[in-house]
Amino acid sequence: MFERIIKAKERLQGHANVTPIMTSRTLNQLVGAEVFLKCENFQRAGAFKFRGAFNTIAQLSEEQRKRGIITYSSGNHAQAVALVGRLLRVRTTVVMPDNAPMVKRAATEAYGATIIDYDPEKTTREEIADILKAEHGYTLIPPFDHLEIVAGQGTAALELFEDLKTLNMLLVPCGGGGLLSGSAIAAKGMEPTCRVIGIEPQLADDATRSFHTKTLHTVNNPPTIADGTRTPSLGKLTFPLVLEYVDDMRTVSETAIVEAVQFLFYRMKMVVEPSGALGVAALLSGEVSATGRVGVIISGGNIDGELMSKIIST
Amino acid sequence: MFERIIKAKERLQGHANVTPIMTSRTLNQLVGAEVFLKCENFQRAGAFKFRGAFNTIAQLSEEQRKRGIITYSSGNHAQAVALVGRLLRVRTTVVMPDNAPMVKRAATEAYGATIIDYDPEKTTREEIADILKAEHGYTLIPPFDHLEIVAGQGTAALELFEDLKTLNMLLVPCGGGGLLSGSAIAAKGMEPTCRVIGIEPQLADDATRSFHTKTLHTVNNPPTIADGTRTPSLGKLTFPLVLEYVDDMRTVSETAIVEAVQFLFYRMKMVVEPSGALGVAALLSGEVSATGRVGVIISGGNIDGELMSKIIST
Repeated sequence: MFERIIKAKERLQGHANVTPIMTSRTLNQLVGAEVFLKCENFQRAGAFKFRGAFNTIAQLSEEQRKRGIITYSSGNHAQAVALVGRLLRVRTTVVMPDNAPMVKRAATEAYGATIIDYDPEKTTREEIADILKAEHGYTLIPPFDHLEIVAGQGTAALELFEDLKTLNMLLVPCGGGGLLSGSAIAAKGMEPTCRVIGIEPQLADDATRSFHTKTLHTVNNPPTIADGTRTPSLGKLTFPLVLEYVDDMRTVSETAIVEAVQFLFYRMKMVVEPSGALGVAALLSGEVSATGRVGVIISGGNIDGELMSKIIST
Repeated sequence: MFERIIKAKERLQGHANVTPIMTSRTLNQLVGAEVFLKCENFQRAGAFKFRGAFNTIAQLSEEQRKRGIITYSSGNHAQAVALVGRLLRVRTTVVMPDNAPMVKRAATEAYGATIIDYDPEKTTREEIADILKAEHGYTLIPPFDHLEIVAGQGTAALELFEDLKTLNMLLVPCGGGGLLSGSAIAAKGMEPTCRVIGIEPQLADDATRSFHTKTLHTVNNPPTIADGTRTPSLGKLTFPLVLEYVDDMRTVSETAIVEAVQFLFYRMKMVVEPSGALGVAALLSGEVSATGRVGVIISGGNIDGELMSKIIST
């Protein structure tokens, strides 16, 4: 798998941003370690998702590209697929619940994707996508459970290691496990002794429980503020990868997540969405005690004005 | 003066952040030029002010340091002086109006400075500072009208040119003219053909009028959202420097400023205060038509939650 990440990085060159690594003297002092934030909120379309989407779609055959692609997501993956579709001139369809936030819908439409609504009370997004796939011959670009998606997501951690050379610990947010498994594979490929820890909200702790019990757990519609981690469970592919490459999983409270977003806003002047702040939340709350050199993947910055206003006024 | 900026840069090494230069494909497309943002919102204490303060205070004699320093400001300069005072172990006094925002007062106190309140209806900050200077032998660190402050502020533009080699245009926010004159001197020293344009809010256009008429104009307490530019006029020292080194001055509307802060928040995931967004406002509104390679100084990111909430909910 590590070779796949290296290939993905070559494929992304000139298309994805090599995102900056940010540091803060204040954060280092508070945490008692040297912390390096890999800022995927500065990635194209505002999140790491661009990496996996581009890596996967760029490998489709001419025939597949002609027929078009489809995905289901109401979040960052949809925007990333829509943007890559536009860049590579592939017709893109996104299946979204009819109650999806207007702002995410608008962003996805702005990239030129066709949006297919469905009523989540009556059917599932997978069903709708299957029907459309069969009808039009679309290729499905799944949000995380796909080898090339995982490989693409791993390129952020790869860049971090190439830049910093050595890290004692790497903290990565976990939703469906695509970013976490990709990052862990990259980390172990670059530095086998680096400790990789996945971070989840306490309210969406399916992967943490799955990891510790080695049995797949599911949490449906967890009411966490970190909407990027509301995926019900790890995937068929990402679960074994997480078990093999990740050293530990930890959870953080909703309060810790809010405080991390505030810290990133007020002290580091960065716009980070709640899911993107999980690693910083783990450090600031003391849930993870860090020493030495610690990498943190900041996964994204797509947050609507209303939610950010609520957080910074708390 | 250019030599002074080079010396200042050496002095700042290891103390000030060499702030990142951010770019955005979307911004470039909207503007029709290649835009490079020099991000002083990522500077220590959240604004370029740290540069001038450190450069000036680091040059005080042992005797002056022992007696202490004083400044008057309710904004970014106060925080910067307080932080440098702490770093260099110099006792620091800040004269602030008793109606200054709690958040700025708290930040300045957190750096260990002593705050002296005054009633702006009854006296001026300069009067209070003069009395305290005479009484305690403090050295005054003025917010902009001082050669070493100007030289320090010029180091941001110097870094920008050292990194990018060539720029056709440089846009700089203007309040008291310390950042603008320092940036212009650095730009002309590095690339004499680079066109340097100062940007002010329409509601605080004293420097623009002063520039065009070559006579010092004053605007008291302008009601602009860009609080960093509410200085009544250019200084005795900065006015002639602006006349000599700056090519043009332009103004932007309050709406353009708000839209620039929104763009930087939503599209670039950066927290930028209204004064810091003036250059981007000039570009996005078309007030400045840019071609080629354009540098923009983003001066700071110290904005309170209430104001940012208002801006991103508009």
